[in-house]
Amino acid sequence: MSVSLVAQDTLMISDLGLLPNTRENAAPFVNKAMAMMEGKQNRVLYFPQGRYDFWPHHCIEKEYFESNTYDINPKRLGIVMDGLTNVTIEGNGSEFIFHDRMQPFTVDGSSYVSLKNFSVDWDIPLTAQGEVISSDAEGFTIRINTNESPYIIENNKLFFVGEGWKSALWEVMEFQPDTRFVEPYTGDAQALGHGWQNYQTKELSLGLVKLYRKGGFKRHPKVGNWLVLRHSTRDHAGMFLVNSKDIAIEGVRIYHTAGLGVLSQYSENISLKDVKVVPNKAKGRFLSGHDDGFHFMGCKGQITVDNCEWAGLMDDPINVHGTCVRITEILSPQKIKCRFMHDMSAGMVWSQTGEQVGFIENKSMRTVGFGTIEAYEVINKEEFTVQLSAPIPEEIKAGAALENLTWTPDVEIRNSVFGSCRARGLLLSTPGKIVVENNRFQSSGSAILIAGDANYWYESGAVRDVTIQNNVFEYPCMSSMYQFCEAIISILPEIPEPDSEYPFHRNITITNNTFHPFDYPILYAKSVNGLQFTNNTLIRSIKIEPFHKRQAGITLDACKNVTIKGNEIEGDVLGKKVEVINMNPKEVKMPSKEFFKF
Amino acid sequence: MSVSLVAQDTLMISDLGLLPNTRENAAPFVNKAMAMMEGKQNRVLYFPQGRYDFWPHHCIEKEYFESNTYDINPKRLGIVMDGLTNVTIEGNGSEFIFHDRMQPFTVDGSSYVSLKNFSVDWDIPLTAQGEVISSDAEGFTIRINTNESPYIIENNKLFFVGEGWKSALWEVMEFQPDTRFVEPYTGDAQALGHGWQNYQTKELSLGLVKLYRKGGFKRHPKVGNWLVLRHSTRDHAGMFLVNSKDIAIEGVRIYHTAGLGVLSQYSENISLKDVKVVPNKAKGRFLSGHDDGFHFMGCKGQITVDNCEWAGLMDDPINVHGTCVRITEILSPQKIKCRFMHDMSAGMVWSQTGEQVGFIENKSMRTVGFGTIEAYEVINKEEFTVQLSAPIPEEIKAGAALENLTWTPDVEIRNSVFGSCRARGLLLSTPGKIVVENNRFQSSGSAILIAGDANYWYESGAVRDVTIQNNVFEYPCMSSMYQFCEAIISILPEIPEPDSEYPFHRNITITNNTFHPFDYPILYAKSVNGLQFTNNTLIRSIKIEPFHKRQAGITLDACKNVTIKGNEIEGDVLGKKVEVINMNPKEVKMPSKEFFKF
Repeated sequence: MSVSLVAQDTLMISDLGLLPNTRENAAPFVNKAMAMMEGKQNRVLYFPQGRYDFWPHHCIEKEYFESNTYDINPKRLGIVMDGLTNVTIEGNGSEFIFHDRMQPFTVDGSSYVSLKNFSVDWDIPLTAQGEVISSDAEGFTIRINTNESPYIIENNKLFFVGEGWKSALWEVMEFQPDTRFVEPYTGDAQALGHGWQNYQTKELSLGLVKLYRKGGFKRHPKVGNWLVLRHSTRDHAGMFLVNSKDIAIEGVRIYHTAGLGVLSQYSENISLKDVKVVPNKAKGRFLSGHDDGFHFMGCKGQITVDNCEWAGLMDDPINVHGTCVRITEILSPQKIKCRFMHDMSAGMVWSQTGEQVGFIENKSMRTVGFGTIEAYEVINKEEFTVQLSAPIPEEIKAGAALENLTWTPDVEIRNSVFGSCRARGLLLSTPGKIVVENNRFQSSGSAILIAGDANYWYESGAVRDVTIQNNVFEYPCMSSMYQFCEAIISILPEIPEPDSEYPFHRNITITNNTFHPFDYPILYAKSVNGLQFTNNTLIRSIKIEPFHKRQAGITLDACKNVTIKGNEIEGDVLGKKVEVINMNPKEVKMPSKEFFKF
Repeated sequence: MSVSLVAQDTLMISDLGLLPNTRENAAPFVNKAMAMMEGKQNRVLYFPQGRYDFWPHHCIEKEYFESNTYDINPKRLGIVMDGLTNVTIEGNGSEFIFHDRMQPFTVDGSSYVSLKNFSVDWDIPLTAQGEVISSDAEGFTIRINTNESPYIIENNKLFFVGEGWKSALWEVMEFQPDTRFVEPYTGDAQALGHGWQNYQTKELSLGLVKLYRKGGFKRHPKVGNWLVLRHSTRDHAGMFLVNSKDIAIEGVRIYHTAGLGVLSQYSENISLKDVKVVPNKAKGRFLSGHDDGFHFMGCKGQITVDNCEWAGLMDDPINVHGTCVRITEILSPQKIKCRFMHDMSAGMVWSQTGEQVGFIENKSMRTVGFGTIEAYEVINKEEFTVQLSAPIPEEIKAGAALENLTWTPDVEIRNSVFGSCRARGLLLSTPGKIVVENNRFQSSGSAILIAGDANYWYESGAVRDVTIQNNVFEYPCMSSMYQFCEAIISILPEIPEPDSEYPFHRNITITNNTFHPFDYPILYAKSVNGLQFTNNTLIRSIKIEPFHKRQAGITLDACKNVTIKGNEIEGDVLGKKVEVINMNPKEVKMPSKEFFKF
């Protein structure tokens, strides 16, 4: 990152007529400022410190296909950098307040962009919350701040109504008021238990709402806990970086979004320092972003995350992955037809001429060959064809998957706090060099998930070089169950017919970390060739009772070349057993003095 | 009015994809519907019953110069009928809810337009209100509904913050909770007394705000009363009818506006039946429109107001007038340069070729001649030139005024309720035939004001044929003081040097009405030739103590041909004296048996 700091030309937003704290719609002023940046170098757009409001009125609207985001278009854009080079947004500690459904920042086809020193929030967020006031046999009562989450009740159901939208409650997440952790044993098991959706609501007084059901819910939230009341859909990122490179984001607080927090897509070299996607405590909020924190799909170069924090998110803090597509038809030896398999991928430009791809046999998940794109042609939002420079491998039939290997970044994540959010902490699926160090994890589900599948989510790809070191995995890691959460670190590619001769993932080193497990499973690894679990310290937490179905500390499934050694326990831990399945136990090197035992 | 009801082609807004109660922004759907109406005849746009929301996003924006409205442009338009013929909006009882600052309805260059059966309101109005909870030596405390009137306090001052705006409190009006009347003796004298503006504010708890000042205010509002807290500016009408004809509005409730309620400008034949500009009581509101109710400037043909009602307005329920301009330069015997003299008139197209004008000598306010426009040319927003078909009268010099006599309507106002609003009830300044009958007046100031000036407001013109009959003027008429309020009926043209030989107004008959005066002044008339005050019944109200400076029941100033006879009192009234000034008492025909005495 080398954003030049010399000879910068500063444009004050106030010189265009927009003063802070006026509540005036900033959108047209910012659009004018951006037009003035075009063709200029080293420009800084400077916001005098204060509050700035952004409304859809006069905002730029553009069609974007954003990964892991619903195709609701056009997107409504707040601050847009389109085709700019060497520009900085200096917020100087300002608050950017958004209204309705909007995408606060869009960086498209730009390079050397720096976004600094501001917060992003909504007065009326797209997720609501309420404090549990009382509970009885048939249900419970919550208090909702009607200024920030106005609601109506229609046909005995709770709907939130905001700036241009009405949306029904569709999920409830429960947080503890003091720790701000997700209440243990909830997660995908639901705070209200399964089948809660046939609830009824009545308003006891303004802001005091009872949710109830004949015979009560299977589980009632605890009085004093806070519920995040999920409604609306994920339709805009907080920041969308696309087809851009050398982006630095620093000193930013993202208190809310209408979807993913920072979504980087087909972009190169991204640095996030001191970026926090957390609840706005000054507003008494437990909710933060609507979905994931930082989401990197199809990026390359270096991704650096340093001194960041996430909490109160309704999905994973970080997810780094590519997007596999399904080969639906072999049109000729060098031409295939492909399909996006997830509705939140459709419409993206999946590759460019000259890019490298891998052919994945979808039952074993083996990459059986490589190729180079010669031509890419869109058929419709879901389908495209690719012409390859050489014939495709013979093993590849319709039903196999294609992975883009050009857009695969190296990743460094350090000195950050993965606070309690719905779901997991860190999802990694990229073959680049990955270093995860000096972080604190307080995840509700698994702290780290290394997945990879070509059959359901179609998020590629296999890892080849992962180092997880000097991190602390605190309670409440793995205190609620979510998809793919088999242990505090869960390595779980989805392979229909695993072949232990050809593991999917490679070279994962977990060393010098401290774990505070209250439960058995610490590490689950499936289909890894070259796994080190060394020199870690395990200290049992007694905060809550164990609940996970697994009773082994380490479970190895179809792995090769595993080393477990030098780990220490302080006191005792529950998960001392190493369970080995679908593989030869001799693939595990573990000294006999190790407290872990088969 | 003859809007054809046969062979109508109905367009359902729901067929365009907009369903009621979704909170979705209706603006783009309605714009599409209007485009589909173009060139069609007898079309009805039908709204299935429910709530529809209008946001500025995607609304049509257009520059309009609206009379008695600030030139803040472009105007943001909700539902726009531009160049349409024979169209109906059928609301079917729907609620149209507006957001931010907008003009709900615009009818421009259209004819045979019918607007039926809907209400207009804001969730967050552009005027606020609060209940007075307590009062002490230094000030008083009010409770504000923070859902509908969010506020902030900056530098100890109260600011309301809404959808895209922030505005400071600048006036307080006080209403009684039971009668919903303006608290007597307040009005222009201010609910808080003069000099209240150096108040300070502090928030005691959310929604509970104290306004105070060292030593207290000159007047403190009564505990239990409701204050309308005026902020923001008048920048959009509720309905703006311009360059249109044959407009019928029926079954409409206007609960709030961002300026004048229904503004008709250079339009012909307007009928308003069962149109109520009143507070939305279901929402506990005391505030209604931001300014006047029905405002007619430069209209012609027939204006009919039947079965209407106004209450809680921050200005007069009805005002019918033209706009005088000042002659600033005699460019040639047939060409003059003119200037709009009020900043809320600037930019209007004042006349067209062929229209009749009157030349007014501005000291005596005598019309000294007539003319016909041959050419009209805009110089800038404030200035224009007119070419006349004949030389202008010799008496006319720079400083004189010009009146447009073509755009002068006949007016019938009947069966309506002039509820308690800030200021007066009915303002009449037009030479056409005026009938005001079977109405109830509960005005805070004068019930009827017939003004006319060419020196300050420049609202023309002299009346020639006014009948005011069978109305009831109840308490609280004339219970607070406002500009030009000299009696329950106040005829007060602003004439710097009146000439009793040439009275300004003519032929005003006030007959068969019932008055309930609690105070002395019933009728004040200045510069009228032909004034009848006959067969009225006067019944003293004892609701409050008299306060007006005038101690005569009838005051006549520079009038001619006055008849006072056949009036009756039930019990007693205070104002039995007829005071005559600047005129010969013989001009007053009053039988000796009349209880009125000189």
